[in-house]
Amino acid sequence: MFRRLLSFASFALLASAARYPSYGTLQTTNSSGVLNVVINNTFSSVNLFDEHVMSDLANLIETLQANDTDIHVVVFSSGNKDFFLDHFDVNYFFPGYASPLPIFDGGIPTMLFPVAILWNITQLPQATIAVIEGRARGVGNEFLMSCDMRFASTSPSVLLGQLETSFGSNPGAGGAMYLAQQIGRGRTFEYVLSSTDVDALTAEYIGWINCAFDTADALHAYVDALAKRIALFPLAGIAGTKQGINAASRPGLDVIVQDAQDVILRLEARPEVLAFTEKFLAATNNQSIGPVELNYGEEVPKLYN
Amino acid sequence: MFRRLLSFASFALLASAARYPSYGTLQTTNSSGVLNVVINNTFSSVNLFDEHVMSDLANLIETLQANDTDIHVVVFSSGNKDFFLDHFDVNYFFPGYASPLPIFDGGIPTMLFPVAILWNITQLPQATIAVIEGRARGVGNEFLMSCDMRFASTSPSVLLGQLETSFGSNPGAGGAMYLAQQIGRGRTFEYVLSSTDVDALTAEYIGWINCAFDTADALHAYVDALAKRIALFPLAGIAGTKQGINAASRPGLDVIVQDAQDVILRLEARPEVLAFTEKFLAATNNQSIGPVELNYGEEVPKLYN
Amino acid sequence: MFRRLLSFASFALLASAARYPSYGTLQTTNSSGVLNVVINNTFSSVNLFDEHVMSDLANLIETLQANDTDIHVVVFSSGNKDFFLDHFDVNYFFPGYASPLPIFDGGIPTMLFPVAILWNITQLPQATIAVIEGRARGVGNEFLMSCDMRFASTSPSVLLGQLETSFGSNPGAGGAMYLAQQIGRGRTFEYVLSSTDVDALTAEYIGWINCAFDTADALHAYVDALAKRIALFPLAGIAGTKQGINAASRPGLDVIVQDAQDVILRLEARPEVLAFTEKFLAATNNQSIGPVELNYGEEVPKLYN
Repeated sequence: MFRRLLSFASFALLASAARYPSYGTLQTTNSSGVLNVVINNTFSSVNLFDEHVMSDLANLIETLQANDTDIHVVVFSSGNKDFFLDHFDVNYFFPGYASPLPIFDGGIPTMLFPVAILWNITQLPQATIAVIEGRARGVGNEFLMSCDMRFASTSPSVLLGQLETSFGSNPGAGGAMYLAQQIGRGRTFEYVLSSTDVDALTAEYIGWINCAFDTADALHAYVDALAKRIALFPLAGIAGTKQGINAASRPGLDVIVQDAQDVILRLEARPEVLAFTEKFLAATNNQSIGPVELNYGEEVPKLYN
Repeated sequence: MFRRLLSFASFALLASAARYPSYGTLQTTNSSGVLNVVINNTFSSVNLFDEHVMSDLANLIETLQANDTDIHVVVFSSGNKDFFLDHFDVNYFFPGYASPLPIFDGGIPTMLFPVAILWNITQLPQATIAVIEGRARGVGNEFLMSCDMRFASTSPSVLLGQLETSFGSNPGAGGAMYLAQQIGRGRTFEYVLSSTDVDALTAEYIGWINCAFDTADALHAYVDALAKRIALFPLAGIAGTKQGINAASRPGLDVIVQDAQDVILRLEARPEVLAFTEKFLAATNNQSIGPVELNYGEEVPKLYN
Repeated sequence: MFRRLLSFASFALLASAARYPSYGTLQTTNSSGVLNVVINNTFSSVNLFDEHVMSDLANLIETLQANDTDIHVVVFSSGNKDFFLDHFDVNYFFPGYASPLPIFDGGIPTMLFPVAILWNITQLPQATIAVIEGRARGVGNEFLMSCDMRFASTSPSVLLGQLETSFGSNPGAGGAMYLAQQIGRGRTFEYVLSSTDVDALTAEYIGWINCAFDTADALHAYVDALAKRIALFPLAGIAGTKQGINAASRPGLDVIVQDAQDVILRLEARPEVLAFTEKFLAATNNQSIGPVELNYGEEVPKLYN
């Protein structure tokens, strides 16, 4: 009886500290109301959005949802100089892939776990800012879109894109929907349907990101000052202001489920998608750093030869 | 009995080939998954959006809806150097005008046939691109808006606009709604309420079109490459990606019917609108090429003198 | 009995002329279908959006709603060289503040009277244009957003912003929602959450305003010509065109109530908001012209020291 109670208490403590396995892919420092989060997936040379990153992000989200005192702003940056955050681990789509994570979200039962991570980020009471150095494609760009603000350097390593259409699939977590709200229907179709890469200056010009800075120093100085400034203000006001802007500018949860998530579930099962995915895995040596991951926008037509 | 069966079979074949009369205003060539469609209304010096073009577009749409194999991208350009596609044939609004086309769409019974043409274009599984050389006003611009992407040359012959307000009417097929999603509420009101013309560089700056190119060669080279690239990718993925972007960025069918189509039906019956329309028909020699059709933005105030 | 009838008749006449008290803060001139309205709150050195301006605006709106003949366009400008229209009179939020105006709108019972003023402006049949010289913050900027079009000079006195988050509150009349439709979710979060000031050139670049002009002369010349041009066209067509664009680009009435107005009602009662408001009132000598009102974007961090 004592053992059973102890066991239950330990489980509760563990769940409170971290509901999902921890992999150390997110390094956090907290100062003056700003939580800096460095994304560094040491299991992947391309900072893949895989089960390790998802598990750590899900834990971070629970911590932030529960924090109503000392954290007012969250700044996401990357520990990988080439990849801010890369696409989804495509092994996920093959039969037999085992993940320690649930298929659907506990809080939003209609949403797949990965899709809910991005939705939950938009719902955080804190302001969220992405500092982009390196590539962000596929769900990596959808993650950017789920943040409140996005700033980049003009380094040639900054390349943004949704690559799903080139796989015969679609941006399944709603990223193209967010993009259309910012850059308009026409340019969204141009960049997303062609699965091409967009550089930082173009991204600023069309509104994909807030601003591109000539140097990394200028980028970090601007974001640091912005984050510290917002962190001065009461969290309730930040959350209340976010509620209004989100209500007017974010696709509805049901729209994301019906017109992005359910579409990708249908498309991913198609033989042509699985065949291209296998070709992609071979060409990238299972999503490792190399020409195809670095320059996907240029390389993808060759994969169709 | 045999004759009856034969007759039925012929009818079915005819319906499958072309449900509506064919006028040859659309010249098509198909290559590498890209269907190039040149709009050339030989019944009109201004490439009028009249019953001939509508009939041919409706047939084209049925062909594309049924095609799930060799066509992945449709590129619309114009065979008239001055007019990409001009406004609606305003004779349509006068009592006694007889059209071979239905009043309402067969598939969407709440939508007028012309309005449904544009809606159906947004619903095509294929990617659609407009290559703009020459003017596109009124429903001509609404047609542009219903395409997924829009590219233009900076030629002075490129002039875009919604001219309906100057008639005392409104953009009845939803074009101003699409525009507002791309260029914002404020600029949409500026250009649409004033019924003015917008040139290609301004159109790019504000996001009305994707991009303006300095030369026709650069325009065509870019669109050709873009179309061929998208055509590499599976049609199901193109269609699935379109579903998500449309869900987030396109006005709903009911909104178009209630707040654009039903409004124009009410306004077109007003004496002041019919009076101005008659003035316009006289000034343009029934919508023929000349100063008013070429420079409507500049000429319209004179029509109010 | 006669006295009672007379009394009733007088009341009806008064109500028809002006339902609310008149304070003379709006100077109007009417010419060629254009009503020019100069906002000049002589009760305030910062052109405060207070009960005087609200009362006069509410009366103006009723006049315009009833006018279907000679006024087709309304142009709002300012009689205060430093402030186009400043924020809400924050005394309103303290217990015991007495206003001659109703709490809720008569026509839209779910909307607070000030919020309904802005909503009703979007619903006017006339085209509305704001000519911005001087600052517009908080509800002043929300007023700008509720107009159809916004033009500014590049004078350094033009500074736009939503300052509510710095008070621990939110833009409660929907202004940030309108902004998000024009400049996108990301840039809206940047400027609104930081409660910073935006200058005219930046505002044009990102789409917050239609256009910034180098000189006041150029600004007025452009708007005069635009207003006169639109005023040529029938009012029914202007109103019908507005209906469609609003339907596609304006947040719904219920969304404004639920995600802006109801949020501010909840937040304004928080002790931290009232404490900052008192600090602000002291620093501005009850909202008088001075460093804090003139340069709020720069001054606000000091108020948190």
